[in-house]
Amino acid sequence: MPSTGAIAGRRAPSHQRRHARLELWARYRRHLYADEDLDLVLDVSRVRFPESLFDAMSKRVGAALDAMEHLEAGGLANADEQRQVGHYWLRAPMLAPSLQRRDIIDAIAQVRRFACSVRSGEIAGPGGRFEHVIHVGIGGSALGPQLVSEACGRPADALMVHFLDNADPDAIDVLLGRLGDALPRTLVSVVSKSGLTPTPWQVMLELEAAFHEQGLGLARQAVATTMAATPLDRRAAEHGWLARFPVWDWVGGRTSVTSPVGLLPAALAGMDIGAFLAGAAAMDRTTRQRSMAANPAVLMALMWYWLGDGRGGKRMVVLPYKDRLALLPRYVQQLVMESVGKRHNRRGEVVEQGLTVYGHKGSTDQHAYMQQLRDGTPDFFITFVNVAHDRDGPSPVVASGATLGDHLFGYAEGSRQALHDRGRDSISIDLPDVSPSSLGALIALYERATGLYGELIDVNAYDQPGVDKYGAADVIALQRLVVVGLRKLKAPATAEMIATLIGRPDETETVFKLLRRLARDPLRGVAEIRGNDRFDARFRSIEGSVL
Amino acid sequence: MPSTGAIAGRRAPSHQRRHARLELWARYRRHLYADEDLDLVLDVSRVRFPESLFDAMSKRVGAALDAMEHLEAGGLANADEQRQVGHYWLRAPMLAPSLQRRDIIDAIAQVRRFACSVRSGEIAGPGGRFEHVIHVGIGGSALGPQLVSEACGRPADALMVHFLDNADPDAIDVLLGRLGDALPRTLVSVVSKSGLTPTPWQVMLELEAAFHEQGLGLARQAVATTMAATPLDRRAAEHGWLARFPVWDWVGGRTSVTSPVGLLPAALAGMDIGAFLAGAAAMDRTTRQRSMAANPAVLMALMWYWLGDGRGGKRMVVLPYKDRLALLPRYVQQLVMESVGKRHNRRGEVVEQGLTVYGHKGSTDQHAYMQQLRDGTPDFFITFVNVAHDRDGPSPVVASGATLGDHLFGYAEGSRQALHDRGRDSISIDLPDVSPSSLGALIALYERATGLYGELIDVNAYDQPGVDKYGAADVIALQRLVVVGLRKLKAPATAEMIATLIGRPDETETVFKLLRRLARDPLRGVAEIRGNDRFDARFRSIEGSVL
Repeated sequence: MPSTGAIAGRRAPSHQRRHARLELWARYRRHLYADEDLDLVLDVSRVRFPESLFDAMSKRVGAALDAMEHLEAGGLANADEQRQVGHYWLRAPMLAPSLQRRDIIDAIAQVRRFACSVRSGEIAGPGGRFEHVIHVGIGGSALGPQLVSEACGRPADALMVHFLDNADPDAIDVLLGRLGDALPRTLVSVVSKSGLTPTPWQVMLELEAAFHEQGLGLARQAVATTMAATPLDRRAAEHGWLARFPVWDWVGGRTSVTSPVGLLPAALAGMDIGAFLAGAAAMDRTTRQRSMAANPAVLMALMWYWLGDGRGGKRMVVLPYKDRLALLPRYVQQLVMESVGKRHNRRGEVVEQGLTVYGHKGSTDQHAYMQQLRDGTPDFFITFVNVAHDRDGPSPVVASGATLGDHLFGYAEGSRQALHDRGRDSISIDLPDVSPSSLGALIALYERATGLYGELIDVNAYDQPGVDKYGAADVIALQRLVVVGLRKLKAPATAEMIATLIGRPDETETVFKLLRRLARDPLRGVAEIRGNDRFDARFRSIEGSVL
Repeated sequence: MPSTGAIAGRRAPSHQRRHARLELWARYRRHLYADEDLDLVLDVSRVRFPESLFDAMSKRVGAALDAMEHLEAGGLANADEQRQVGHYWLRAPMLAPSLQRRDIIDAIAQVRRFACSVRSGEIAGPGGRFEHVIHVGIGGSALGPQLVSEACGRPADALMVHFLDNADPDAIDVLLGRLGDALPRTLVSVVSKSGLTPTPWQVMLELEAAFHEQGLGLARQAVATTMAATPLDRRAAEHGWLARFPVWDWVGGRTSVTSPVGLLPAALAGMDIGAFLAGAAAMDRTTRQRSMAANPAVLMALMWYWLGDGRGGKRMVVLPYKDRLALLPRYVQQLVMESVGKRHNRRGEVVEQGLTVYGHKGSTDQHAYMQQLRDGTPDFFITFVNVAHDRDGPSPVVASGATLGDHLFGYAEGSRQALHDRGRDSISIDLPDVSPSSLGALIALYERATGLYGELIDVNAYDQPGVDKYGAADVIALQRLVVVGLRKLKAPATAEMIATLIGRPDETETVFKLLRRLARDPLRGVAEIRGNDRFDARFRSIEGSVL
């Protein structure tokens, strides 16, 4: 409406427009999904799908729901890796096979007990009661816990959770600098499902050194979350860490937030993890329904499919109007893009599928890229996420008889309408609040929608064959060859000469970059002698290398 | 290389592959842009443009450079708004028209003086020396300052800068909760170029109330950055705020980071703003060059143009391998999408242009959406941003004779190669460090590339006609009508009845949402009486409304 100034009496709407708006209201009523228990609303009325869509897709949706049933019953849903996919069991252990059931129940109890002991001070650090947690993990081992922490954390929480989710040494220094002399009251939680993910392992080694430098032993302040008998699990056992929490083969990283991976930091911060699990479980029940109109995950997956023609032809902009949910778009980005961004379909055909997700938060982003969304390339759809609860406590009126929260709602509603007026489609999700329960439900909704969408486009949504291809290992191995090769040099040599010397002339470019990188740091034992241009530079080994 | 395991001796590369890699090395050498002064490298060799591109585009690039000269000479580059575009003057005042020159020099001096007085404690709050700054602004008034703060902030900084960049009341409560009893030592900096942007204004009113509740007067702890004689400027003057800093008509929000908008919070935190401005100025000098190969902004704009066919046909993924730069993708997203996401070209034709930008940080994102980038839809290109300086101080060896920083480099280099092997193009920018100087240069590079790209596709890159269309004002006005209408009701009525009553039946959907929203909060004076379904609910006014 803002685009025409049609409401609030500025200009009477034309009959045509009035008619169109009344039709939209009818469409809104007709297609609204409202979950009275969860107090959650999904509105797909502003996607211009034809009414025939449901009939046309009912068979395929039925097959997708069948596949989800098979998955939940313990079938090998991740065929490539011959693995079960069990994240739905995490919040409904009674539905899990008996072995998994026991594991889940025990793990949740163990998380609760441990968090309780830490918060009570029964388990404490050498400096007393723990006040901080450093959560070390990457990808699925970090993003879910970060989302939960930002969404549900409170300034009064007894423990503050910090994250190290990258191989960036400077980030470690910044965090340790911030923690200052609180290190003796800091718990370190290392999370790696495989127990050998390089980055968390290496960050752990860095922290060990930093703790040691302050006269602290990491073991006395550390816990591990990993599968049984992994290198991390063994190290934690051998070094006598405070505790070890399980995660299982049948939980994927990007869907591990309702496992100990996400529950432990949440419980440590004091969040009601029971409510979180219950919210997810309630949404799971709802999204098992066969009726398309009564299943919000089906509605969402169907919209994604229709909007992008089953090819991801439109980018999905996720826009929560709430600072606490600013990480939701990145969480959904990981969940969706890693699940459906696949080269092959299940029949082995090359399909190069995907569904690009981005976004941050409204109304802030209205002042950033929304200019393009309204006026520019129409290659996207938006999902607005609104939160009814503005804040704890009353709000002052800040303008026009309205509160700040009223304005936030106004921005979302105004944007939805302005985009619709320009033919840009949108989905809206209304949440009652950002509570553990609502967050659990929202996450479960996106998990199920992603799984169903994966079925509709016939890709394995549970593997990630491309991720392992990005390792640093080959570059690091090349670096070793370079360092060793340099030591054998009789005279300084160019990158091209050194690459040939070590038998890798095809890797000259990377050798060149490695040499320049090493030569920048006086402690690395590599000297650069400048030439006529940067490519003529010669390098030699010098004494005192730390490598 | 990781995708084939070709290096490090695992498998000898085929002759074909070896040849291809050597050709890439030659291409790398041929096209590398290296700025020896700034120690900045731009590598476009992994974009598969044909060598004929430069000749083919030279006339249009020449015209784009002419347009930038015209702009820098003070022409009305923003034709729609009849405004000059002067952000390049901010770091080279001698190039500015004389009036602007004086203003810039005075403003920088004022920022320096004020920051120095605050840091020395000469200007202090009622609780003593200022320790915190709350920066209140939205869009261009926040994102640049946030980027600078994250990139260059240190744990030891005397002042910590916090941001309120949204109309989210809960976000205010969270920040005030964190600050706790530090409020008397907290400076509030309100930034709004127009001086009437609703969100910062309303957040300011909220803060005023919160300060008042703690017996504090906001005026004694507040500064404003705004154009002269705006409502914010007048209020700050009348209430006797600590200081007022200027920003000018000829500085756009998304390019205001080298104006007092960005300089003030940076200077307060203790950053060397002289080095920041000098880095930007040096890049500006470089990017004024007519030679395409010697002008990194031309190279970048040309790649964007070639990759997306001048239509934004490929999404730009920006991936800095450094936590400190995690906000860079969002900064570039705002800069690029708000600048080039336009409905019309300069000739008035409907073009619906745009260039979508997203990303966060490497190597973290390799564990998120990079699965799709390598295996899925090839609808993007990446810009890798590498930082040579790992950290202050030495690094321990964490694995395979290598440091954590070596691994971070390895991930970037490995990903670049793995993507190239799959036919995905990338640009790389190498920075020496994340210093004020490098950051200034990087920002100036993106500013100029965006301006040049705007010229190449013939859009006005300096207006944002779509942004004003998203206002909350019409929804808020409707809310007032609803509240007044409710009070006149003799008996509870449905949303449809109320919408008709207030003469806005076409707005029934929004009226319905507003009623439900108001009825949720017992303080808002609206009661809901449930019906058979949610649309039958009736509403009435109750006593004690705060509105």
